Amino acid sequence: MQIKRPFFVFNPKSYLYGEELLRMAKRADELAGQYPECTVLVTTPFADIANIANNTSHIIVTAQHLDGITPGRGIGHVLPESIYYAGARATFLNHAEKPMALADLAQAMKRAQELGIKTIVCADSVAEAQAIAMLKADVILCEPTELIGTGQTSDQSYIEQTNAAIKAVDPNILTMQAAGIASAEDVYRTIKLGADGTGCTSGITNADSPIQMLEDMIVALNQAYQEEK
Amino acid sequence: MQIKRPFFVFNPKSYLYGEELLRMAKRADELAGQYPECTVLVTTPFADIANIANNTSHIIVTAQHLDGITPGRGIGHVLPESIYYAGARATFLNHAEKPMALADLAQAMKRAQELGIKTIVCADSVAEAQAIAMLKADVILCEPTELIGTGQTSDQSYIEQTNAAIKAVDPNILTMQAAGIASAEDVYRTIKLGADGTGCTSGITNADSPIQMLEDMIVALNQAYQEEK
Amino acid sequence: MQIKRPFFVFNPKSYLYGEELLRMAKRADELAGQYPECTVLVTTPFADIANIANNTSHIIVTAQHLDGITPGRGIGHVLPESIYYAGARATFLNHAEKPMALADLAQAMKRAQELGIKTIVCADSVAEAQAIAMLKADVILCEPTELIGTGQTSDQSYIEQTNAAIKAVDPNILTMQAAGIASAEDVYRTIKLGADGTGCTSGITNADSPIQMLEDMIVALNQAYQEEK
Amino acid sequence: MQIKRPFFVFNPKSYLYGEELLRMAKRADELAGQYPECTVLVTTPFADIANIANNTSHIIVTAQHLDGITPGRGIGHVLPESIYYAGARATFLNHAEKPMALADLAQAMKRAQELGIKTIVCADSVAEAQAIAMLKADVILCEPTELIGTGQTSDQSYIEQTNAAIKAVDPNILTMQAAGIASAEDVYRTIKLGADGTGCTSGITNADSPIQMLEDMIVALNQAYQEEK
Repeated sequence: MQIKRPFFVFNPKSYLYGEELLRMAKRADELAGQYPECTVLVTTPFADIANIANNTSHIIVTAQHLDGITPGRGIGHVLPESIYYAGARATFLNHAEKPMALADLAQAMKRAQELGIKTIVCADSVAEAQAIAMLKADVILCEPTELIGTGQTSDQSYIEQTNAAIKAVDPNILTMQAAGIASAEDVYRTIKLGADGTGCTSGITNADSPIQMLEDMIVALNQAYQEEK
Repeated sequence: MQIKRPFFVFNPKSYLYGEELLRMAKRADELAGQYPECTVLVTTPFADIANIANNTSHIIVTAQHLDGITPGRGIGHVLPESIYYAGARATFLNHAEKPMALADLAQAMKRAQELGIKTIVCADSVAEAQAIAMLKADVILCEPTELIGTGQTSDQSYIEQTNAAIKAVDPNILTMQAAGIASAEDVYRTIKLGADGTGCTSGITNADSPIQMLEDMIVALNQAYQEEK
Repeated sequence: MQIKRPFFVFNPKSYLYGEELLRMAKRADELAGQYPECTVLVTTPFADIANIANNTSHIIVTAQHLDGITPGRGIGHVLPESIYYAGARATFLNHAEKPMALADLAQAMKRAQELGIKTIVCADSVAEAQAIAMLKADVILCEPTELIGTGQTSDQSYIEQTNAAIKAVDPNILTMQAAGIASAEDVYRTIKLGADGTGCTSGITNADSPIQMLEDMIVALNQAYQEEK
Repeated sequence: MQIKRPFFVFNPKSYLYGEELLRMAKRADELAGQYPECTVLVTTPFADIANIANNTSHIIVTAQHLDGITPGRGIGHVLPESIYYAGARATFLNHAEKPMALADLAQAMKRAQELGIKTIVCADSVAEAQAIAMLKADVILCEPTELIGTGQTSDQSYIEQTNAAIKAVDPNILTMQAAGIASAEDVYRTIKLGADGTGCTSGITNADSPIQMLEDMIVALNQAYQEEK
């Protein structure tokens, strides 16, 4: 499964699990089927991966993290083979809520690449984004830590600057901008400003109708993309 | 589900996942059904919990770790509700390969207790075991870190001393001794020396016949227990 | 050097270093000389320990942390022998801003005890305080994490409860209560409520006259103690 | 103080402190005065920085680590201002024994640059070295983790490859190769192979005469450099 421009990550973090997560993931799956030019990813807690993967076919089931270990010791760590077997085909890495040592990040990215798990690696500054680009991420999420969960989106200059900085190191890396995305409007504007993809957590989970917000955002993603073709 | 004396933990760490883990877990499940006075626990990677839980009924499916978070943010952490939903009813905590800050350990134990997830908390000295006993663990694993994976078992004096020290703080806490368990003999002797339970990782996964070794160990566990009744 | 009831810890964390820290430490030293029944401790950044120790004689120079390592490898960690040589005779451990794995905490306490460095170990709940008491701390700081830096002090019931819980495990351990201490009043009341000692960070460093506030607090400490004799 | 080709880092880690460290640092200082074209750096535990800096004038006193904090809270962390005040003018960062999260590393490098503290940042693969080069380190230490302390040096191909990879990203960054340096021969060969600098820990501290070994290594460093002029 490839991640392509434009993509959308529904990232409910630890807000959702079990039945409620499944219900949202199924709707995301329908939308992904409906808009085949859009790549839709849904993150899940580790123990929910199998349940989500077994009940969907168009979304990329995405882990919240993995550790760069190989089968063996390593109790309490996230074995890449285990999440792949359960159905994960992408993973977040180095989120501000789960920062990784540089060496661990490099090792985790290597193991993910070996298994065909796409990496969405987080950076909170342009310099970090460029450092991560050197390690061959599939997607780099450029999220100024200070904006996470604030409802404020990154401004045009930040988006353009990080986009250019990442593509300068490696034009094949996709860029994701997701700080403060709270409406379909935000999704539309972020893609228009040049991000390859975007995503949302509490903007969806806290919406009056999370299902409706999810749909509106994916529709907006598709619209921004159709206009540029 | 209760953990009672005598218990056995098959802890394949990250050595096994997917089909191979499932095959072993099913055999453990049959044995647990066959020896109902013995509690059998099987640890699994997070993403394998659901698969193992859905295909077994006598074992206690055990997570390798959980984090003391509540539903909300916390990407990359192990949400207790998610592993409970998937079928985990016990968890390791503070293993030498996944050490926890004291405050995080206390918080994880609290969350596990709220959900009815039994805690198997690791200590590598008598003083630490007593500190953990203060936090009301269900099981304390007294494993001198320097013996993990060496094939050397704890000696009689260590086992008796830790047993007594833990029961002195809280007689309801079960004690587990598992350093260097590599044969059915080791299992038998450890229970005879007074441990409430024991367990094994590489002694099983590296055995000529892991399935046979698993069976031999549970038989030995049961035998030691029957002799003391 | 012994820590005795009543004691006061001036803990400027990383607010002060160099000349300004030295000036405050010298004043604390004079006050410690003036009130010999009160033990006065001053914490310093690691690299300031020698400068403070070389210029004072009545205070206990206190490190902010140490690691349970022995001379050898361990680059970037805090070698106990190095801080002892520089003049530290006490150390904080497991502060909420520098949480320690339980095994690391136990090892650090052991190394401190070997060198004659007193340990002030932080807990943020009664259960944790009791766990730490099992490890033989010299002082336990019972600071509910949620109150740090808020200007709210722990209430009477919390102070009495933690005091009793710790003394129940080990009556030789001194208790420190320092949440939200912002005035001489707070110091006086905290000792009256039964804490063996207290301390202050921003209540002093942010005061109109930090020197005056330091003096007022130590005077209040002494007064509370004199009244109970 | 500038770090220039060729440079030598005497990095006694936590093997030395107090009097013995001072004795070695003084000898390093004499040698640095004697070979002014060679930059000599000596790392010290945090609490020894002031003592070493006050008693030397030609070496660059080097911290083992610093944290990217500003004066304020942060108890137990290494305040850059404190080590600068004590006399440190360079620091190691991200050593395999003290790995840093990428965001913390970036922040620490920024704070070091603000104060004029040179950064020696460790990488254990070519990809990591390039990632770090993006963050504008002053020196990158390319040390395959698996060789640390083994007495095996990096081979010619590794040295040339990392050198080229780093200079390709930023030709102003100095490269350091120090894996397994155990003799003056090793120092000579490493500089000849193109490293800008090298260094040594146990090869000196465990030598029959550490002082003599230190001298031999600096002489060899100078000789390799003179031959290339």
